[in-house]
Amino acid sequence: MRCVFCEILEGSAPAHIVYEDEHSVAFLDINPISDGHTLLVPRVHAQWLEELPEGEWVELTQALKRLVPAVTKAVGARDSRIMINNGPKAGQIIPHLHIHIIPRRGLARRGVAGAVSRFKPRSRDYFEEVAQRIRGAVEELF
Amino acid sequence: MRCVFCEILEGSAPAHIVYEDEHSVAFLDINPISDGHTLLVPRVHAQWLEELPEGEWVELTQALKRLVPAVTKAVGARDSRIMINNGPKAGQIIPHLHIHIIPRRGLARRGVAGAVSRFKPRSRDYFEEVAQRIRGAVEELF
Repeated sequence: MRCVFCEILEGSAPAHIVYEDEHSVAFLDINPISDGHTLLVPRVHAQWLEELPEGEWVELTQALKRLVPAVTKAVGARDSRIMINNGPKAGQIIPHLHIHIIPRRGLARRGVAGAVSRFKPRSRDYFEEVAQRIRGAVEELF
Repeated sequence: MRCVFCEILEGSAPAHIVYEDEHSVAFLDINPISDGHTLLVPRVHAQWLEELPEGEWVELTQALKRLVPAVTKAVGARDSRIMINNGPKAGQIIPHLHIHIIPRRGLARRGVAGAVSRFKPRSRDYFEEVAQRIRGAVEELF
């Protein structure tokens, strides 16, 4: 089955990549919940966290810890929602494990169940500008 | 400042603990979004992911990977939402880093912004029964 995230990782589908290393790649979510909404993805294909080899998970979460302050700094935020929709019944749409990093600048509805924002379509220029700012913050902080 | 999660870790506040190791403790969320809603917490106090020492983060995420299948299995689910509200503007209420594990059995609204359920108050017996089932699954799977 075709996996669009595997295609991005192979370079055969387009994405606004903001970070990559040997084990993982991060790119902008094409339907951002907030400015800077980024997805961090392991290079190894796995749908559920349970399916990812333990060593790949350690690498992924170490990249996550370094990436979160870069993503938030790039859009002038301190806070962020970090989320895995682990399976289709949790809202997973692309069946390749991915960690959402969603910067939060405004006051969100409190609590875990609160919807955080609404979808707004964005231009290609918008994505390129945000990606550039995150790449700059990654270079500065890593 | 008083931190209720530090009090739980010290044993001076009550909680339905389902798992513990040298670095982390997991207990039921007192306002569950779904059956089995569990919080995994580092023993070291830190409000933001950025403040947690890297070694503690590695231990925490390794515990998470082992805990997720136990929590979901205990309530008859496969899928789950895994989430950190990293700071007050992301919906963090208790200022001590915690990872939500929210089992999903039914069809959730798709996508990252969808609210997943509504708060329902639960009885003490309810919590004790759920905690028992998770402790059993932890013993079986770990």
